[in-house]
Amino acid sequence: MVSDPTPSCEFVADVLAGRTRAVARLMTRAEAGTDECRPAMAEIYRHTGRAHVVGITGVPGCGKSSLVTAVTQAIRAEGRTVGVVAVDPSSPFTGGAILGDRIRMGDLVGDPGVFIRSMASRGALGGLARATLDAVDLLDAAGFDIVLIETVGVGQDEVDIVRVADTTVVVSAPGLGDDIQAIKAGVLEIADLHVVSKADRPDANKTVTELKQMLMLGLRDAASWRVPVIATSAETGEGIAELLAAIDKHRTHLSTDGNLADRKRRSAEARTLKIAEDLVRRHYAARRDAATDALIDQVSNRKLDPHSAARQLLGTLNSEITS
Amino acid sequence: MVSDPTPSCEFVADVLAGRTRAVARLMTRAEAGTDECRPAMAEIYRHTGRAHVVGITGVPGCGKSSLVTAVTQAIRAEGRTVGVVAVDPSSPFTGGAILGDRIRMGDLVGDPGVFIRSMASRGALGGLARATLDAVDLLDAAGFDIVLIETVGVGQDEVDIVRVADTTVVVSAPGLGDDIQAIKAGVLEIADLHVVSKADRPDANKTVTELKQMLMLGLRDAASWRVPVIATSAETGEGIAELLAAIDKHRTHLSTDGNLADRKRRSAEARTLKIAEDLVRRHYAARRDAATDALIDQVSNRKLDPHSAARQLLGTLNSEITS
Repeated sequence: MVSDPTPSCEFVADVLAGRTRAVARLMTRAEAGTDECRPAMAEIYRHTGRAHVVGITGVPGCGKSSLVTAVTQAIRAEGRTVGVVAVDPSSPFTGGAILGDRIRMGDLVGDPGVFIRSMASRGALGGLARATLDAVDLLDAAGFDIVLIETVGVGQDEVDIVRVADTTVVVSAPGLGDDIQAIKAGVLEIADLHVVSKADRPDANKTVTELKQMLMLGLRDAASWRVPVIATSAETGEGIAELLAAIDKHRTHLSTDGNLADRKRRSAEARTLKIAEDLVRRHYAARRDAATDALIDQVSNRKLDPHSAARQLLGTLNSEITS
Repeated sequence: MVSDPTPSCEFVADVLAGRTRAVARLMTRAEAGTDECRPAMAEIYRHTGRAHVVGITGVPGCGKSSLVTAVTQAIRAEGRTVGVVAVDPSSPFTGGAILGDRIRMGDLVGDPGVFIRSMASRGALGGLARATLDAVDLLDAAGFDIVLIETVGVGQDEVDIVRVADTTVVVSAPGLGDDIQAIKAGVLEIADLHVVSKADRPDANKTVTELKQMLMLGLRDAASWRVPVIATSAETGEGIAELLAAIDKHRTHLSTDGNLADRKRRSAEARTLKIAEDLVRRHYAARRDAATDALIDQVSNRKLDPHSAARQLLGTLNSEITS
């Protein structure tokens, strides 16, 4: 099949030339999740892999957004360009109260070397992961030197997103207490760098010590990367230069160890599987007809178990998904 | 195909007769996730739908486990039977520190009218959801009057598990602060009942008021269920009888409104889709061969985009999944 140049495909050259207007337009289309922009995104993907993708994660209130702003300014001060994709949790109930954080980034507006996008999806989180990573691809292909992904570090979906990063920074605030630490347990092990934010607060040192002790317990083999714990203050600027240096050092470490290829492969695998799952869910939602309704009714009425129904459903959807 | 009676299938009759030893054995096999026990679990499923399934969720440290123990004792005092499935988060890093909570349930050991199971899966969370719901099915089919599912209320996977419940109880502890509230936003809307635990603490009233105000903002149509906020203390026993009465009242409400059928159907749909996703991931992991490795390599090397790879992967796996 010869593919005609679609409007989306026309944007591809503009994205590759670094035109942010085209980046923004294709990002919006990709976020909508329609198939129409797939050929363009497939082409974009082939031009990715150059940017240093950095995930920054932590519980709400840990000071992630202020940190991302400070790091972005530090990168710009060195003349490098930065794309930021911020994943804001939002529920039908709370209406995404955390979006206000974005306002603090106001002083970066108007700088062509910075591109900031908030993803405020209210739909399936699988879709959110896909949209987020499409946005990262666009910024990567457009030539941004560093792409920061900011996510709330709770839940498997957020962990899946962050796992795609080359370098993962986990942010802790001082004095959040044991309850929060337990929630965060799932993301602690994915940290390449730890940041203790709000270093101006008196209890910051205690949190730094606790994290260092925790890292001692979970120490990986000596040859591998030694995870640093860096205290920062977005307020005073303390630790920001050190953090940026550590982020750069981690990328160099990955390249020289040959671990970068490993990590890129793991990330490709995780992402492909996530999309495969997402395709099943999307095609089910798009199809829903008498046949699929009857299948779910059978499960609901205890005539058929959900495992057998799931197999049948995959068979039914597969011809559409793979066509 | 005539299916021979497998060892698993022999257990089915014992489970249906309420023999807890058979329940425990089949639960262990189902948790392993092998296909061998699928025919038995399919048969078990046909005998479910009688138990009142109650999800109890909240962040770590909110007092869920103590509450579950107190509610279990209250149900037993009325002569009804209770199954408990507790989902303990565990990571390779922390080694499931929260398992210790189970010890508090010690005084229920030896009572044949109570069955308690901790699911401490370290694998994929999709698999955890499946194993948890298989355990709920077994307890339901074995004739337990009420099945309590205790989960940590953060993350999409936990929400998915709780969504299968007829009645969902969200537990908040007093004074956990705004950060925690933001994390919990995702589960607040799924609450049929709110519990403020540790009612003996002076700041409990403030949390009750805050939750009531939040519910006013999100008020659903007047004809539907009015979500109560109940202050409890596992310590003093305050509010436990009231909570149990509200749980029973919610089930009656569902039955009389005809909403029970709706909810069972939504739950059947969510569960079938979750298993379909899980099948994709499991079959990928089981298959991994030169062909799938080459596919992931292409994605990793930017020769093929992950979306096209996901479609190809589904096509490759489908013949195995649906056979």
